Formats: sequence, structure tokens, C-alpha cells
Amino acid sequence: MTDLLYFEDFQPGQVFELGSLTVSRDEIIDFAAEFDPQPFHLDEEAGTASILGGLAASGWHTGSMVMRLLAENLLTRTSGRGSPGITKLQWKRPVHPGDCLTARVEILDTRDLRSKPDLGLVNIRVTAKNQKGIEVLVWENPNLFARREVAR
Amino acid sequence: MTDLLYFEDFQPGQVFELGSLTVSRDEIIDFAAEFDPQPFHLDEEAGTASILGGLAASGWHTGSMVMRLLAENLLTRTSGRGSPGITKLQWKRPVHPGDCLTARVEILDTRDLRSKPDLGLVNIRVTAKNQKGIEVLVWENPNLFARREVAR
Repeated sequence: MTDLLYFEDFQPGQVFELGSLTVSRDEIIDFAAEFDPQPFHLDEEAGTASILGGLAASGWHTGSMVMRLLAENLLTRTSGRGSPGITKLQWKRPVHPGDCLTARVEILDTRDLRSKPDLGLVNIRVTAKNQKGIEVLVWENPNLFARREVAR
Repeated sequence: MTDLLYFEDFQPGQVFELGSLTVSRDEIIDFAAEFDPQPFHLDEEAGTASILGGLAASGWHTGSMVMRLLAENLLTRTSGRGSPGITKLQWKRPVHPGDCLTARVEILDTRDLRSKPDLGLVNIRVTAKNQKGIEVLVWENPNLFARREVAR
């Protein structure tokens, strides 16, 4: 937590590696039971019978797991102030029990905000691959960061 | 679970009410601790000092809560087969402890799928308002449904 990254520190083309996590069967079922109780997220047989090819994590679970990697390994070391939304998101492949997700973020562009001169907007692309190197998730969204000269 | 809705049953302009849920302080903090450990999602003081104006739910938490309403009150009564992604999503206002979210879904359009003739694609817009009637979340995304004649 020593040298926070501010808006001015982000440049298009920068890449930050976000580390990895492994998801368990219980985590997939627990999340689905609470937030996305569709059969293929809750039950092995229903998952196998579905186009997901086996018990598969809710897309909201996958997004939330990757958000954890983004928050822990980048945003909490920055002057991040949240995000107004998601520009687009693709669930490219299902995530199954035991899958290990490795994520990275690329800085797409940065923009001043007339309405909030103490903040700037940074558009990012977040991607997550599984242990086979296959992309499972891609999202792009704008993120707000405080400017260094204002925050200090 | 008697009369499932199939692809053929969806038409542009249809609206389905998805009910409501109330989010607690503990739920906001528990979700953030697991998936989005940014200070304004974890701590009252940090939330109040932020542009969120108080402890506020992770956007992924808000999306997941609304996903629960969508799954429980619509998708599990359909031939739903999942979704390939999110076209766009806006977190329009922060969600605070005690807020009650009421969601609805509107059918935007429907489309055949050449690659998967047993399925069809239905684009939906999901909106959630808080207890003051203010929109907090809007997302649009494509959803896959089995066709009636194939599924039977």
C-alpha cells in the first residue's frame, strides 16, 4: 500500500497481471443457490445434459471471481473510485469445478471528466483464461480514478 | 413448473415483473469481502467519504441479486439455456444497506440461431429500481431458450 497508482499513472497498452484462483464444486453450487438457481449451475446431471457440458459456474460468479482478482491485485493499490458500468462482457466458455482462472487487465484508453475534474476515466479490458489457456471471460468497462494532484 | 415458456413464447415488448428483495449491511460486506474488497464496499466510513455517499454494494453484488430475481421469477419457469454475455450494463445509483430492489425484464427482440437450430436467442433488458422508484441497475443481454417443438 505504499505507492498508490493514480489516474495519471495509466496509459493505453499497459498490462497488469492479476494472479489466479481455483473454484471448487461447493463454491459453484453455493453461489448459484444464492444468486442464480438455474439447474445447470446447481446440479451435475443437469449441467451434463446442458450445452455447458457439466456443472458450470453462474456467469455472475465467474465475473465476481475475476472482480476479486482485479480488486485484490490492482484496484486496492490505486486511487480507484468505482465504475459506472460494463461496456460489454462475454462468457466465452463454461467454468467447471476445479478450474483455475488466471486474469489480466489491459488499459485501453484514458479520458478527462469535465463533470468531475478531480477524477479521470480509464477504460480497461479484463480477460480470464482457464488452466488450459482458453479464454473463459472478457469484459470491458470504464473505471474512475482520483488524480494525483487532487488526492494528495 | 407446469407450463414452461419456450423460445416461441417470447415477443418484443413483453414485460415480466421479477419481484423484490431487500439487501442488508451484512450481505453487502460479506459479498465484498469475498469478491470485491474495495474500501467503499466494506466500510461505512470509507463509503461515506467516497462518491457512493455511504457503504454501497459491489456492482457485481447488485447484478447477482437482480440475477436471482430473474432466475427465480422467470428463467426457472422457462426452457432457458444460459447466456453468452452482457451487451451493456449500467450501475446508475449506489445500493445501500436496507435498500429494496424491484426488478422487471422487457423482451427487446428474438432471433433464430443458424448454428443451433434447436435454440433461439432472446435479447432482454433488465431494470432494477430502489424503494424510492429510482433506477439503480439496467442491463441488456442475449439469452438462449430451447424451442418448444424440439424440447418436447
